[in-house]
Amino acid sequence: MSPDPARMAPMANAIRALSMDAVQAANSGHPGMPMGMADVATVLYSKFLKFDPASPHWADRDRFVLSAGHGSMLIYALLHLSGYEAPTMDDIRNFRQLGSPCAGHPENFLLDGVECTTGPLGQGLAMAVGMAIAERHLNADFGDGLVDHRTWVIAGDGCLMEGINHEAIGLAGHLGLSRLNVLWDDNRITIDGSTDLSTSEDIPARFQAAGWHTVSCDGHDFADIERALAEAAAADKPTLVACRTVIGKGAPTKSGTSGVHGAPLGDEEIAGARAAIGWSAEPFVIPDNILADWRGLAHRGEGEHAAWTSRLHADPRRAEFEQRMAGDVVQSDALSNYIDGLLAEPAKVATRKASEMALGVLTEAIPDLIGGSADLTGSNNTKTKATEPFRPGSYDGRYIYYGIREFGMAAAMNGMALHGGVIPYGGTFMVFTDYCRPAIRLSALQQTRAIYVMTHDSIGLGEDGPTHQPVEHLQSLRAMPNVLVMRPADVIETAECWELAVEQKNRPSILALSRQGLPQLRLEKVAGNGCAKGAYRLKAADAARKVILIATGSEVSLAMDVAGELESKGIGADVVSMPCAELFDEQDAAYREDILPDDATLRVSIEAGVTMGWERYTGTDGLNIGLDRFGASAPAGDLFERFGFTVDAIVPQVMSKISS
Amino acid sequence: MSPDPARMAPMANAIRALSMDAVQAANSGHPGMPMGMADVATVLYSKFLKFDPASPHWADRDRFVLSAGHGSMLIYALLHLSGYEAPTMDDIRNFRQLGSPCAGHPENFLLDGVECTTGPLGQGLAMAVGMAIAERHLNADFGDGLVDHRTWVIAGDGCLMEGINHEAIGLAGHLGLSRLNVLWDDNRITIDGSTDLSTSEDIPARFQAAGWHTVSCDGHDFADIERALAEAAAADKPTLVACRTVIGKGAPTKSGTSGVHGAPLGDEEIAGARAAIGWSAEPFVIPDNILADWRGLAHRGEGEHAAWTSRLHADPRRAEFEQRMAGDVVQSDALSNYIDGLLAEPAKVATRKASEMALGVLTEAIPDLIGGSADLTGSNNTKTKATEPFRPGSYDGRYIYYGIREFGMAAAMNGMALHGGVIPYGGTFMVFTDYCRPAIRLSALQQTRAIYVMTHDSIGLGEDGPTHQPVEHLQSLRAMPNVLVMRPADVIETAECWELAVEQKNRPSILALSRQGLPQLRLEKVAGNGCAKGAYRLKAADAARKVILIATGSEVSLAMDVAGELESKGIGADVVSMPCAELFDEQDAAYREDILPDDATLRVSIEAGVTMGWERYTGTDGLNIGLDRFGASAPAGDLFERFGFTVDAIVPQVMSKISS
Repeated sequence: MSPDPARMAPMANAIRALSMDAVQAANSGHPGMPMGMADVATVLYSKFLKFDPASPHWADRDRFVLSAGHGSMLIYALLHLSGYEAPTMDDIRNFRQLGSPCAGHPENFLLDGVECTTGPLGQGLAMAVGMAIAERHLNADFGDGLVDHRTWVIAGDGCLMEGINHEAIGLAGHLGLSRLNVLWDDNRITIDGSTDLSTSEDIPARFQAAGWHTVSCDGHDFADIERALAEAAAADKPTLVACRTVIGKGAPTKSGTSGVHGAPLGDEEIAGARAAIGWSAEPFVIPDNILADWRGLAHRGEGEHAAWTSRLHADPRRAEFEQRMAGDVVQSDALSNYIDGLLAEPAKVATRKASEMALGVLTEAIPDLIGGSADLTGSNNTKTKATEPFRPGSYDGRYIYYGIREFGMAAAMNGMALHGGVIPYGGTFMVFTDYCRPAIRLSALQQTRAIYVMTHDSIGLGEDGPTHQPVEHLQSLRAMPNVLVMRPADVIETAECWELAVEQKNRPSILALSRQGLPQLRLEKVAGNGCAKGAYRLKAADAARKVILIATGSEVSLAMDVAGELESKGIGADVVSMPCAELFDEQDAAYREDILPDDATLRVSIEAGVTMGWERYTGTDGLNIGLDRFGASAPAGDLFERFGFTVDAIVPQVMSKISS
Repeated sequence: MSPDPARMAPMANAIRALSMDAVQAANSGHPGMPMGMADVATVLYSKFLKFDPASPHWADRDRFVLSAGHGSMLIYALLHLSGYEAPTMDDIRNFRQLGSPCAGHPENFLLDGVECTTGPLGQGLAMAVGMAIAERHLNADFGDGLVDHRTWVIAGDGCLMEGINHEAIGLAGHLGLSRLNVLWDDNRITIDGSTDLSTSEDIPARFQAAGWHTVSCDGHDFADIERALAEAAAADKPTLVACRTVIGKGAPTKSGTSGVHGAPLGDEEIAGARAAIGWSAEPFVIPDNILADWRGLAHRGEGEHAAWTSRLHADPRRAEFEQRMAGDVVQSDALSNYIDGLLAEPAKVATRKASEMALGVLTEAIPDLIGGSADLTGSNNTKTKATEPFRPGSYDGRYIYYGIREFGMAAAMNGMALHGGVIPYGGTFMVFTDYCRPAIRLSALQQTRAIYVMTHDSIGLGEDGPTHQPVEHLQSLRAMPNVLVMRPADVIETAECWELAVEQKNRPSILALSRQGLPQLRLEKVAGNGCAKGAYRLKAADAARKVILIATGSEVSLAMDVAGELESKGIGADVVSMPCAELFDEQDAAYREDILPDDATLRVSIEAGVTMGWERYTGTDGLNIGLDRFGASAPAGDLFERFGFTVDAIVPQVMSKISS
């Protein structure tokens, strides 16, 4: 059975010793939190967490999220001690050094057992909400036999001060995600000093107001911790466990102070701590009996895993479940048939509407897709017939009313994608990518397949005015590594971009979609996905080519009109549609040179957003038609006119540039 | 005295009529909120709000913030009815049309009386916290005679679901900002439908947990509203007034539904509403007696204003107060003397340290500066000797411990700047500009002098790893209109950039500062501010110029080393330091051509961030040394080596490019 308190104290001290030693060796890091939460973490791993170190990808494992990611040595110690293949003790010795998987903050792409990348505060908790959503949804679909696990979070005061936790706990409380438990490291210290400097909040009262159960414990009393965690596990609501701890517990002079938060303890303090906790082993050495107690914990999970595997093998839906968890989507002709239909019967629709049409097909064909919107369902066009509401207690639905919680939505989507078995998409206005941005960055860094449906993607939004009109957003998102920013030009490109987004297993996509109606520009069938290369020649010059017009989204039809006018003057003009600059950049030189030859041909970019960055494709002797200021409130047509997005405004600039 | 309920009902209905008519004429907009909150707003303006329509800039006016900015017709109606010069009835007729100050969302730069731009939800409330901070601070300095006003906010469910409101109310509750009152439009409807779809929160309980007083009222009972507002005004804590309302009150079939939230009512529904509220005047016409009641409200404020003016004229510190409120900073030689000292005795320090040194001088000389950090005081180096803590009840301090609330801090800074009398600066890590980004955008749009002290501005941050290493941030912020992104190279440039930031009365600045020490590169005195033109030639080529190295911040010293190595090979190299690309872009063509001639000289950019956008300065045949991927966790030196930011890695690329 699980170890008694007498054996747990040394186990917890092993975490403390490793944390002190690793931070000291790196000469940087955060010893305070791992030392403070060592006792709680030991009880969690010993008695509650369902895990099998030999099978870190086991689908029905509990998810453990260290939302207070700066305390990374806590999870590295836990993974090593409990018998994961990595990190090794050498990895821990190399904490925070180039090439070690023991990075400054836990990175999901470096270590199994690190369920998500944490460090940007508050987001771990918010991702855990997404994991708990995915768990309940898959449970509703596949049953208790295959999906029946909990999500455990360790969060600090920082996580609970960040705005996103309000969104996350509001959503979790509303949805009644009772299998989500947050262990709050209530140490009353932040980097600047006592929490009294900056907050007076009654945190449990706030969680109760959000529909959570709360319980408290002495975070250094093993029996009391066990009582509280048992209560959390049994509660029919998500639960906050307030664990009263001493930061840097064990450090003789620095514990309980901000001095232990984010700096090495120093040799003298470490010596004192070792004496205080009775730890005499050499640095980076764990006495055999203590290690044996840690390694022994695996037996429980191994047994549960074996029983689960038997159930899986007996389950008639085994193949489907495995495919879902592997992230492989069902192959289907549905989208291709849908595109054929559009070629036969063209549609002039806003690309947000085109997105809804494509989603109608995709959500029907692909059960993994789980959608939602941050309270703009009718504007983002994110709900389809196949996606019924995901509601408290009825978790089989595939549509989440996220409320006015853009950041919380984006982080939850990351959590769902990381959990696996579902492919999350969610919508808001393009301008509010700013609200989501820290989570979009974690989508990119964590390589999650989160699909952002960002509508109203330019001044074409119209009357709502500059607060709601994205201007700098396309370029500022293209600047971010490992994200596909897709801005389709018509109903066909929208379907193709959706297909590409769903195919990206290891990166997020942002679909930038118009409010306003756009003509269908693609009228002929192409082999494969026409957007797959990121940019392509939509129209070749009729007369001798003197200009290449490069445009995206709603400006592609304008570019076609500009080209028509130029051709009427005998000036040959290509039109290149560039729905995804990142994919174009990934093509070989021959393709890129074919589309955008490096010769004397004038290259013109047309996009209703800032021009910065477009010189990459036009050269500095090209022409960049864009909007380098905030927009204004007016009907869309008036704004496009006012800001020069018309044939009459653009053609003379092109002519003048050609003749200069 | 103030009108009785019998006269207030028609006054409120005037708001309803204008809101219906304007939205209908524009064929877009949000009638539901103005109609629902018309009664509450009428009581607020009639009995509580201190304002003088003839003097909208009166320093001691109450601030009214419509945080639920989509209900913009509410404030346009209030301003017009109560007698502000603008908007005129013609402006209201042209609601949401090009050129009308009655934009889709209220814009502070279009109308006096609109204290801040709102629409991005939650931020109005958070800016109001900043206004209330500024009020208490100036009160502590100048006394009750000159500064003694309240901040009133109308917020909707959206504002209260957004994460930022958690940060804002936590800060306000902690600081005990009792003169801040939030009127919550508790209509239980969001765009997607009933609030039951997405939230189950007990909002008053949450505010109580954050240290607020709460009170409720029937938002359509004038006496009950007055009782609640009086209680709020008298409370010794910030107060939430929960106003139970019916969205679209008056609309016969659509009131109380999401159908009235964001769409015109239509002629038939408007006719029904007019009948229901007994409104027979033509559209855009206010009966004389009702208008007279509205206009009569001004008397109270005029009297208070006159008394205040007398006190101001009698106050020995009148000139100082007026200068502060005008945003004109004290002229002083202090910074110039400080720079002379550095020239005499150069310093090798991190630019974050250099920022602290410059701030030490500036905060001593300029009492307007009020600083803070989102719990990274020791890392951002934002606290100086002159800035004592701003604490609950002791508001004379000039340093705010914002807690782990980056977004809330940034929004509060906007509110302070908009209030006037103070110049806010605040710090966090550069990577967390993502958390602040929606507020930075409102700094830019609202033209506020908010100064962001963003330290740890590259992989030079080192061990904390990719979650904490900005890569795309410089370029993504440069993409935003009306923001100065400043990345000084050494201790002198840092002082100069601080001077420039303080001088910008109508735009925000972001100081991107290094964690790591940087040599002082500027050793000779220059006339004026060396950074004022955004970029300048730090070193002219010795040998015949073949290369121009353009660098920013910590990479300027690297560029100097690269140039030295090139010169040793007989290759003449200019080094251009570009601390602020936006200022450089504003220079005349002759200056820009002198610094970056458009000839065959190879131009090379060196910046430890993404290269996208640098082609603007290097051309597409230039060389862009940057980092187009996420960083890693390791000591800074190892990372610069790993990612090619060394003389050895760069010189061969330059040589190869020159010879190609």
